[in-house]
Amino acid sequence: MIRVFKFFKKTSKRAGLPPGTLVPEAAPDAAPVKITVIDYDEDSYKEEEMTAAAECRLFRDKRTTTWINVDGVHNVEILAELGECFGIHPLVMEDIANTEQRPKTEDFGDYFFVVLNMLDYEEGTVATEQVSLVLGSNYVISFQEREGDVFDAVRGRLRNAKGRIRKAGPDYLAYALLDAVVDNYFVILEEIGESVGTLEEDLLRDPTPETLRGIHGLKREMIILRKSVWPLREVVSTLGRGDIPLIRESTRIFLKDVYDHTIQVIDAVETYRDVLSGMLDLYLSTVSNKMNEVMKVLTIIATIFIPLTFVAGIYGMNFRYMPELDWYWSYPVVWLVIVALSLLMLFFFKRKKWL
Amino acid sequence: MIRVFKFFKKTSKRAGLPPGTLVPEAAPDAAPVKITVIDYDEDSYKEEEMTAAAECRLFRDKRTTTWINVDGVHNVEILAELGECFGIHPLVMEDIANTEQRPKTEDFGDYFFVVLNMLDYEEGTVATEQVSLVLGSNYVISFQEREGDVFDAVRGRLRNAKGRIRKAGPDYLAYALLDAVVDNYFVILEEIGESVGTLEEDLLRDPTPETLRGIHGLKREMIILRKSVWPLREVVSTLGRGDIPLIRESTRIFLKDVYDHTIQVIDAVETYRDVLSGMLDLYLSTVSNKMNEVMKVLTIIATIFIPLTFVAGIYGMNFRYMPELDWYWSYPVVWLVIVALSLLMLFFFKRKKWL
Amino acid sequence: MIRVFKFFKKTSKRAGLPPGTLVPEAAPDAAPVKITVIDYDEDSYKEEEMTAAAECRLFRDKRTTTWINVDGVHNVEILAELGECFGIHPLVMEDIANTEQRPKTEDFGDYFFVVLNMLDYEEGTVATEQVSLVLGSNYVISFQEREGDVFDAVRGRLRNAKGRIRKAGPDYLAYALLDAVVDNYFVILEEIGESVGTLEEDLLRDPTPETLRGIHGLKREMIILRKSVWPLREVVSTLGRGDIPLIRESTRIFLKDVYDHTIQVIDAVETYRDVLSGMLDLYLSTVSNKMNEVMKVLTIIATIFIPLTFVAGIYGMNFRYMPELDWYWSYPVVWLVIVALSLLMLFFFKRKKWL
Amino acid sequence: MIRVFKFFKKTSKRAGLPPGTLVPEAAPDAAPVKITVIDYDEDSYKEEEMTAAAECRLFRDKRTTTWINVDGVHNVEILAELGECFGIHPLVMEDIANTEQRPKTEDFGDYFFVVLNMLDYEEGTVATEQVSLVLGSNYVISFQEREGDVFDAVRGRLRNAKGRIRKAGPDYLAYALLDAVVDNYFVILEEIGESVGTLEEDLLRDPTPETLRGIHGLKREMIILRKSVWPLREVVSTLGRGDIPLIRESTRIFLKDVYDHTIQVIDAVETYRDVLSGMLDLYLSTVSNKMNEVMKVLTIIATIFIPLTFVAGIYGMNFRYMPELDWYWSYPVVWLVIVALSLLMLFFFKRKKWL
Amino acid sequence: MIRVFKFFKKTSKRAGLPPGTLVPEAAPDAAPVKITVIDYDEDSYKEEEMTAAAECRLFRDKRTTTWINVDGVHNVEILAELGECFGIHPLVMEDIANTEQRPKTEDFGDYFFVVLNMLDYEEGTVATEQVSLVLGSNYVISFQEREGDVFDAVRGRLRNAKGRIRKAGPDYLAYALLDAVVDNYFVILEEIGESVGTLEEDLLRDPTPETLRGIHGLKREMIILRKSVWPLREVVSTLGRGDIPLIRESTRIFLKDVYDHTIQVIDAVETYRDVLSGMLDLYLSTVSNKMNEVMKVLTIIATIFIPLTFVAGIYGMNFRYMPELDWYWSYPVVWLVIVALSLLMLFFFKRKKWL
Repeated sequence: MIRVFKFFKKTSKRAGLPPGTLVPEAAPDAAPVKITVIDYDEDSYKEEEMTAAAECRLFRDKRTTTWINVDGVHNVEILAELGECFGIHPLVMEDIANTEQRPKTEDFGDYFFVVLNMLDYEEGTVATEQVSLVLGSNYVISFQEREGDVFDAVRGRLRNAKGRIRKAGPDYLAYALLDAVVDNYFVILEEIGESVGTLEEDLLRDPTPETLRGIHGLKREMIILRKSVWPLREVVSTLGRGDIPLIRESTRIFLKDVYDHTIQVIDAVETYRDVLSGMLDLYLSTVSNKMNEVMKVLTIIATIFIPLTFVAGIYGMNFRYMPELDWYWSYPVVWLVIVALSLLMLFFFKRKKWL
Repeated sequence: MIRVFKFFKKTSKRAGLPPGTLVPEAAPDAAPVKITVIDYDEDSYKEEEMTAAAECRLFRDKRTTTWINVDGVHNVEILAELGECFGIHPLVMEDIANTEQRPKTEDFGDYFFVVLNMLDYEEGTVATEQVSLVLGSNYVISFQEREGDVFDAVRGRLRNAKGRIRKAGPDYLAYALLDAVVDNYFVILEEIGESVGTLEEDLLRDPTPETLRGIHGLKREMIILRKSVWPLREVVSTLGRGDIPLIRESTRIFLKDVYDHTIQVIDAVETYRDVLSGMLDLYLSTVSNKMNEVMKVLTIIATIFIPLTFVAGIYGMNFRYMPELDWYWSYPVVWLVIVALSLLMLFFFKRKKWL
Repeated sequence: MIRVFKFFKKTSKRAGLPPGTLVPEAAPDAAPVKITVIDYDEDSYKEEEMTAAAECRLFRDKRTTTWINVDGVHNVEILAELGECFGIHPLVMEDIANTEQRPKTEDFGDYFFVVLNMLDYEEGTVATEQVSLVLGSNYVISFQEREGDVFDAVRGRLRNAKGRIRKAGPDYLAYALLDAVVDNYFVILEEIGESVGTLEEDLLRDPTPETLRGIHGLKREMIILRKSVWPLREVVSTLGRGDIPLIRESTRIFLKDVYDHTIQVIDAVETYRDVLSGMLDLYLSTVSNKMNEVMKVLTIIATIFIPLTFVAGIYGMNFRYMPELDWYWSYPVVWLVIVALSLLMLFFFKRKKWL
Repeated sequence: MIRVFKFFKKTSKRAGLPPGTLVPEAAPDAAPVKITVIDYDEDSYKEEEMTAAAECRLFRDKRTTTWINVDGVHNVEILAELGECFGIHPLVMEDIANTEQRPKTEDFGDYFFVVLNMLDYEEGTVATEQVSLVLGSNYVISFQEREGDVFDAVRGRLRNAKGRIRKAGPDYLAYALLDAVVDNYFVILEEIGESVGTLEEDLLRDPTPETLRGIHGLKREMIILRKSVWPLREVVSTLGRGDIPLIRESTRIFLKDVYDHTIQVIDAVETYRDVLSGMLDLYLSTVSNKMNEVMKVLTIIATIFIPLTFVAGIYGMNFRYMPELDWYWSYPVVWLVIVALSLLMLFFFKRKKWL
Repeated sequence: MIRVFKFFKKTSKRAGLPPGTLVPEAAPDAAPVKITVIDYDEDSYKEEEMTAAAECRLFRDKRTTTWINVDGVHNVEILAELGECFGIHPLVMEDIANTEQRPKTEDFGDYFFVVLNMLDYEEGTVATEQVSLVLGSNYVISFQEREGDVFDAVRGRLRNAKGRIRKAGPDYLAYALLDAVVDNYFVILEEIGESVGTLEEDLLRDPTPETLRGIHGLKREMIILRKSVWPLREVVSTLGRGDIPLIRESTRIFLKDVYDHTIQVIDAVETYRDVLSGMLDLYLSTVSNKMNEVMKVLTIIATIFIPLTFVAGIYGMNFRYMPELDWYWSYPVVWLVIVALSLLMLFFFKRKKWL
């Protein structure tokens, strides 16, 4: 529940440090950093695991396309070495290590830097993981916070030489990775959509305070999600705009396709937000409705029986001189009065449409 | 009720596939694809049904205008063949097959691609169907998800050579199809308008929880509808802007007319949305009002009779030494007290304007 | 109540027709179309009624300024003839006949087309009437849905040669007509303002469900009114911008004045809207307040008398062995207890500020 | 309370009149118009009261700077004469006389026209007064609706030759007057701020319906105030933009300072608006809270005593064959039951956290 | 609680004064002004305290970089002397002394002026302190309202020659100070985040009126905070835009980094605002829920026992002729009726899902 606020705890640790200082984010018990290198062109394909960051020098000046994927950004030395190896600005490495960046792009001429958020949705909470991409003239370096399976499909297409990916150079590879991240949003949105659907059904059938908490929780997640997808749109739009020399014309049409997907993601997030707001309103109205019904029942019962009890109370008094007590027809008459009064009340409620 | 979320289920199926892969959308029991070709110029008119997609080659280089209408986009082979025949980019064919696109336009120089949403309103739910148009120099290809009657009027005008449609080339035909789709929005909006009107009458006469659910449902539909009409505006605006060589100057004034209609559609959707929001507020206030009235009745009855019952209760006590019990005038005096108390209370309620 | 929705009924009738088709809007029992012509220059003035639309040819090439005012647009033949006579595009004539256009302007070079909405406010409902103006180099044609008095002041100034109107040509005449329409908005807004004021007084003095319905109704009208005045602003702004050759520089300063008025109208509409929203909130709070007060009365009465009744009930029991019943001081002691309990309760309520 | 609506009454009087007609605004019993002239340059200073508007001719072509201040705009003849004397367009004079203009600027080359609103806050109501400025090459004419003290500080600085005002020409004088008007906003905002603060304290300590009315009233004033300050920002921004030849470069930096102040004013108005909205929400929640507490008291009392009264009622029945009545321990047992039931109830309420 | 309104009190004191007049802000018992000078280049470093403002002349034309930090801006003479010494415009000095400016930048060619707000969060209230920076070609002057520790880290890096700060000139120093101020926002936001988290937990576990007041208070602070961070964004964006000659290209990339941080700050403020709004809604719904539950308990108890008490009341009447009283089975039958009625009611409540 206190997920939003963790965000700033991390960042405030850095206050006062000179810019470009690498501060590790993860706890010391984190998994070791894993670096995999895929080196390919149309004809060749080689996949291996790097054991020392210094090996990166081997891939710096190759004519083939090299994709270095780093799982884990908490090892500051490895990051520093990689950065130095490919001549990446220390501020960029800081952004990679400090995993609570907003999605953004930065063009450095020689290389292009992209920060993305990847989503994970579990038990009503959206978790974000930072994915950073550095696109150079003959390489792509991708950084993930921990090992994941989102790039597996890309790896598979590279291995099997499926589609144009092996022929198309590092910009197309960067597109493919971006596309994989954005496609992953749909999987998350689908799950959220199912949660929304379930809540709506609960709401229409039998709303409980649990439903209310559920709606509130999802709405809260939407607020945070929104903060993540709007800058994503800007990132993809910048990439597709065509003033980046590292991205070829032929790749741009594919980036436009990703852009369309991002717009769909935004549409979905906004739609869920609006739908959830509507559900909160509906909840409040439903509770009011129910209370109204409860009140009606109470009022009907009380309004009928309180006067009758009063009548009975009158003839329960013990005054010595109460002439009615001795009349023969008193008791039946009282019953008559009681029945008449009840019917009158019921008629009154009927006319008020309370029954 | 779970219509919004279906959306993403479809799209998430595609995650991880290389771009341009055609994945069929519909279930295997869908109706067979039906392709009708209308080939015409000012003097000639020919209408036939295509039995094999390969026949499209016949119409590729004709001087007449050819309109190919495809009902059903779930047959991936047919789509692929058509796309190849007219040299359409695989990503476009993917957009046509994947029927949950946002309305959009794409200019490829040789041809122009338009995605639209068509609406269907049934039992309080708005369903959208994707209509795609590909406008070439001498042809228009239109894709619908299933057979419908929305283009019948255009067909009729072509057959009867009514208006300028037979003289005016493929861009005017594309306009006519676009106009037919937008005109269809008015039919839907009219039905929604009637639903809104009925709900408002219910609301003002006798609101029930059913009314509340109705308002909520319609408001929800408006949220989704909005997502569909705003991009439509952009589509029509792009078409009318005049930097598309395939659209002639003389057709542009007609597109401006369609643009005016789209603005009217947006106005209507926004108006309904605002009106429905106002109705929700009114519902809540009305329920509060009613509860207030219920509470007043309860309070009046209870406030009058509870003290009286207490008085009666006092003289129902069985103490041996209660001097009043033996007085001769006790009983009438108690009645006097009771009547006086009641009148006092009624006067108090009168002054508080509760009666 | 179903005024908004009528809108689309009209338009949907047109779905499927070729563009430029004139479809009459009004019922067959509408008043006959009335065409008045005023032909004037600085020295001459002639006012007559046209009996046949064909007479328009007489005024086509005159050097004087001609103002043709058409009351009633349901006679399709007359419109067609007039359109042909002055060379007006069929789509324009369609817009004139189809009286549910949004305010807009269209420049055709030879002539300039303006659509406006005129308002009528009666019994809490705003009705709009379409006024169309066609401004040519030596003529102005104005179309109204039915005979009205909004242009009477302009007619009077023409007759009496008051102000610069007789010297200033057709663009100034168009301005004068536009000004008359916009001035009319203030009359309406004033009446609406009075309704708002009355409702607010009711709300602060003694709100009833009638007040609520009144606020809701006016707010609804504001939603619709807004849709009408925002495009009006754009119309007037376009006219005053100075890239329309038919409008001379000297007339532009007057159009700027009309623009200021439109901004005032928009300000007023937005203010009313905000004020009405605030009133709805206030209503809800007031109802809650009242309910709170009702509840307090009920609670005070019930909380005092229910325990007392219980005490009385105890000593109304008929057990044989109840020692208190036979004590001499029992009855007065019970009364003491009752009085003490009551005072305690009253003190408790006092401290809770319920009294 | 009906302040907003007066606005339109005034303006609607003008409907139908030719533009530039001067219609007096004020009642005939208004104070007489007072015209003061201050004529100065670096060395000389002359202050006098003008007895006839015709005297203005004396100041038309002087090399010194002339400030003519007119208190009262209801005398149409004086305005007309002044306008003619300095060659001001009749539409400008109409705007000056018609005191419900929006703040705006108009550049006529020879002179520059500014309309401002001055505020007055009394008893929870914001009243606006129109201040018009005409800036010429060697003169400034200022118009106020009635005599006020807002320009006294400027007059003092002129008299005492304090600051750069005597050296700096008419554009600096116009700036000084504008600055005086904007500074006046802070005084008003401070008073409003105090009202807001008082209401908030009431709200947090002991909210009454009076508090609610107070919040509603202030919120309403904010709606109107907003309509006044946003165009003010535009006015000051236009003046500072530097494309007005009458305003020298050296004065522009001071206008930028005024611009900063206007932004502060807007910030304050928006802040108050948001704070007041939050207070309304808080009020509603507080009322709900209180009602909840009231209901709890009622429920606790009723839930405890109603069952007990029933028990007592049972043994108050007069059946001949009720064995318990004759048992010796019945009465104490009933008391035991009563106490046990009460404790059970109290425990239940405790667990529900109602106590 | 009356923090917002103090704001204007300060400023209104200035109404009527000529521009550029220095008016002290602080009370006379404020701490004395403390001026520290740090003069450095790559090789040298000198830190001293200035005893008289006139000493500033020593640092005016040095080739090294001079940072003058002024703690306290209430001493008007010192400010005036400093301003004169470095040739700073009196309006700038007024902005420095008048500590309620909005964040802004002003470029004067020779020097560049920046106003910032620094935050302090204590006991649920955000206090802002103005920090002003004047950046010249070889100096930076910083003004704080009172001594603080926010610049200590910068001082430390200067002393220890850590990072590039000693090599990089005054523009980098200005960046470092700006960065320190923005980094400070994260510390504050973190504390606010914790307050939000605590309130949310309270809200979900056991909301009290105290929670409500807490949410309202924080929301109010967010309104004020927002007014502070949005202009900050503009300030940093202006600095990074690259048309300011005093800021070198190499420093710009660092400013872009600060810009990213400001966006994060804005995101956080907006997120908190939205989350707090959602919490208010949730609070209201929760209170309604609770009231509903209270009402249900009352209704169940009352609805069961009121009719039973009536039955008992009937047979407590003292009529002489009531045949049931003498029947042998009456009493058990009455009990049967009572039990049956109760079970019926419980079944009814069960079906209504109230139990």
